[in-house]
Amino acid sequence: MFLALDAGGTSTRAVTLDASGHALGYGRAATGNPTAVGIESAVAAIGHSAQSALAGEVATDPVSCVIAMAGQQTPAFLNRVSARLGSLGVGPVLLQPDLLGIFHSGTHELDGYALVAGTGSVAARIRDGRLERVVGGRGWLLGDEGSGFWIGHHVARAVVAALDNQVPPTALTDLVLAAVGIEAPGSPIDRDRALHQLLTALWARRPVELSAFATLAFQSHADPAARAILLTASRALAQLITAVRMPDQPGPLVVGGSVAVRGMLAAPHDLRGELTRAAAGVQVIPVPDGVVGAAVLALRSAEIHVDAALFDTLRAEVGRVAASAA
Amino acid sequence: MFLALDAGGTSTRAVTLDASGHALGYGRAATGNPTAVGIESAVAAIGHSAQSALAGEVATDPVSCVIAMAGQQTPAFLNRVSARLGSLGVGPVLLQPDLLGIFHSGTHELDGYALVAGTGSVAARIRDGRLERVVGGRGWLLGDEGSGFWIGHHVARAVVAALDNQVPPTALTDLVLAAVGIEAPGSPIDRDRALHQLLTALWARRPVELSAFATLAFQSHADPAARAILLTASRALAQLITAVRMPDQPGPLVVGGSVAVRGMLAAPHDLRGELTRAAAGVQVIPVPDGVVGAAVLALRSAEIHVDAALFDTLRAEVGRVAASAA
Repeated sequence: MFLALDAGGTSTRAVTLDASGHALGYGRAATGNPTAVGIESAVAAIGHSAQSALAGEVATDPVSCVIAMAGQQTPAFLNRVSARLGSLGVGPVLLQPDLLGIFHSGTHELDGYALVAGTGSVAARIRDGRLERVVGGRGWLLGDEGSGFWIGHHVARAVVAALDNQVPPTALTDLVLAAVGIEAPGSPIDRDRALHQLLTALWARRPVELSAFATLAFQSHADPAARAILLTASRALAQLITAVRMPDQPGPLVVGGSVAVRGMLAAPHDLRGELTRAAAGVQVIPVPDGVVGAAVLALRSAEIHVDAALFDTLRAEVGRVAASAA
Repeated sequence: MFLALDAGGTSTRAVTLDASGHALGYGRAATGNPTAVGIESAVAAIGHSAQSALAGEVATDPVSCVIAMAGQQTPAFLNRVSARLGSLGVGPVLLQPDLLGIFHSGTHELDGYALVAGTGSVAARIRDGRLERVVGGRGWLLGDEGSGFWIGHHVARAVVAALDNQVPPTALTDLVLAAVGIEAPGSPIDRDRALHQLLTALWARRPVELSAFATLAFQSHADPAARAILLTASRALAQLITAVRMPDQPGPLVVGGSVAVRGMLAAPHDLRGELTRAAAGVQVIPVPDGVVGAAVLALRSAEIHVDAALFDTLRAEVGRVAASAA
């Protein structure tokens, strides 16, 4: 038996499966990313999702495990998560980059590209099933252009500038105020009250929480301020793709992360012109998460060859147990 | 006797003077801004600079005091600073906005505009000696476009993107690495080492410290990446001026803060085209700090009329004691 986990920045997904790709159970929990929430919470979420996927039973036969995750893979985290999963009869635990989890959720091939834009943004060239080159993903302060944080941060700044009368009004203002639970200003004079409430509310949060506003930009993409932000974000993601593309490698490009999949790929065509150009000639495969890829990596780690047929089985099986667990 | 203080984000300046504008002493200390360094450190710096300006003596006659300072003026800070200065025989203490200190460092007139771009950026319209409208200055995360933080942040991001091969090389890279004490990469492969050292070094600092890189952009203003950053910053400062200008008010515009005065106003003309246009028809007066203005406010608080002649005396006198204290 195998346990495959996708420990994402928003949630963790776990699936148990056998060597033929048949899925046995599925579990979901909060984020299992130690960089985002610390080792304690991450290990708890991973343990919780694994328990669900094992249907509450402690495995008697050996269960090898792959966790696909973003960020730094520290020995401290590996020790703690191995101990937790060991108590469920699961081990050994192999940590893999989230980019490989995403890539292999879209294809069984060993060469291509991956682009992930969720809270952060990063792209990679994959060759022989390994990350050959990774670009971006340097965190909210110094990188992550075009990511959920980047878009949400610019949305918040645009609303502050509009409430401050520095720039024309934007449709984003009412959406952001509503999201934070602040009453929209009834008059121009009332703007100052709303602005100060907003500044106070946003300073009380962690900067990275600004990424929650990214969906508001897509929601009001016809608004000039929102449009300008999304165009710049789209260009930044295009730049990531361009930076990893090589003439000798035809693709495919597997795309993951809510900003990329539910945001950019679903946005009007004119908003993502450069993105489309950057991906020209490459098959683009959007995926909802990295759990199928984690399953591919788990089977491969046991030297099981994952061909097109087994990959299709895996994808269908994970879809089946995920749907019945929803 | 009067004590006038400019408690800036980088340093504090204090001057003692009499009712005729004759300066008696001058003192300098670290930042006296409680928002930047906390109440303890701010009060210590203010006390230290005041002691120097009083030449180490405790005043026997009453000394009224004005402190020009940015940020929130809290009762807790006023209580603590009043107690500290009271021990030197100084009081009462009146807190005034730094924008008025800057404005009155450039003119004795009661109407006009002020623009300050140091670590932050803010502009104001002044009428009858009061702030009629303030725009900008919302802090590094949500505002402060065109400020030292904004420029330094974009410099750091540009260097990270260049080391990551996302964008063409920039002259900023070697300057930033040298400023942080990291050896410039000797080869393309060595770039990864430099990038990781830089990310580690920058994450260990407070975000606001990125403003130290602003001077590097001005230093290499011919570099395309630096130029693009400075052009956007210049536009943002122009936007602040435009937001406070009114047709019925001819100026002057007093400009303070190192980024505005030593950076923008000293930059090649083509970099600040929009800034020049935004200030068209207005007399622009750069000032090095707000201590002359604090002196103007101190005299006015004692109902002394500061006319052109007294203002010129004040400015010359503060210049004299500041130079002899340097």
